[in-house]
Amino acid sequence: MKVSEFLDAVASPSPTPGGGSASALLCSLGASLLCMVCNLTIGKKGYEGSEAELKRVLEEAERLRKRSEELIDEDAKAFDEVMEAYKTPKETPGRAERIQNSLKSAAAIPLEVARIGVRVLELSKVVAFKGNVNSVSDAGVAALAAEAGVRGALLNVRINLKSITDKGFKEEKQFEIRNIERKSKELLEEVTGIVAFKLGN
Amino acid sequence: MKVSEFLDAVASPSPTPGGGSASALLCSLGASLLCMVCNLTIGKKGYEGSEAELKRVLEEAERLRKRSEELIDEDAKAFDEVMEAYKTPKETPGRAERIQNSLKSAAAIPLEVARIGVRVLELSKVVAFKGNVNSVSDAGVAALAAEAGVRGALLNVRINLKSITDKGFKEEKQFEIRNIERKSKELLEEVTGIVAFKLGN
Repeated sequence: MKVSEFLDAVASPSPTPGGGSASALLCSLGASLLCMVCNLTIGKKGYEGSEAELKRVLEEAERLRKRSEELIDEDAKAFDEVMEAYKTPKETPGRAERIQNSLKSAAAIPLEVARIGVRVLELSKVVAFKGNVNSVSDAGVAALAAEAGVRGALLNVRINLKSITDKGFKEEKQFEIRNIERKSKELLEEVTGIVAFKLGN
Repeated sequence: MKVSEFLDAVASPSPTPGGGSASALLCSLGASLLCMVCNLTIGKKGYEGSEAELKRVLEEAERLRKRSEELIDEDAKAFDEVMEAYKTPKETPGRAERIQNSLKSAAAIPLEVARIGVRVLELSKVVAFKGNVNSVSDAGVAALAAEAGVRGALLNVRINLKSITDKGFKEEKQFEIRNIERKSKELLEEVTGIVAFKLGN
């Protein structure tokens, strides 16, 4: 799908692709920007000391951006599954269980997106610190996109948890949500601090 | 360009499309999500009282998402112009002026992106408050994407300002940057407050 078609599809009256897919795209965009900064650093004069580390970052960022790109579609599919489950006639045996299972599966996708986003933020810190200083704003945008992706994904986990009845499952996920939120907020502050320092204004 | 091709192009060793184009995409994605929530609200039972207002929001969000989508390419072009200006031989008459003019033009693009992002945040507040409650997480993701777009765009204004010698121009833009930053931060807090309240967790 073309970028313009994807944006049209988001804007359309269909609930998918929606905020879940958008959050996955944000993380993929962040990881892609990190790849660019690594590519603009590796082999450049003055960055020989960071080359080995940035090659490892590039390799991981490539994996993360591909996985989060897959999650754009997977999120839409999982949400469509939930809609299907709700549409089954009320008297169908196992209907409630089907709904609950679809909600749990649907919550798993944005949780994976959020975990990827945190990792993109961790890598952004390395890239902002050791990458090509001419591209430091790109490392900053990578972190901003990833953090928005993390928080957006967590909103999608939360809206699924609202309808999940399994208390143990909910508590476990709520605990993870808190941890991820705290971590990504801290990481973004660290990265923006490095970027502001390097921009010198 | 397909979404996957765009992400590949970002990740590639070419500096465009980079963080500036990514920031424009973030704002367009935010505006597109607002369109979706409006489309999922207008005509629905229980939302009759907000219909007229959300129709106006939808119309404006459509315009904003189209304009920021155009800015994805315009940012890359303006950056390429700067690169071209720097590449002219050092002895070329008017070289310094050409560089300075290209930098000022290049700074204008992310400034427009940031202004659009602030407007998307203002509209997100209306949509989070009055839109379909089942899509409140999408209004939240819209605001998160737009705020990341604003901050990302401002990093791109800043990196251009670094090389601009016109003091009056710099001060004027730095003043605007501060104002936009403050405003978008406040707006995001307001929107996430509404979303958290409506999610009830």
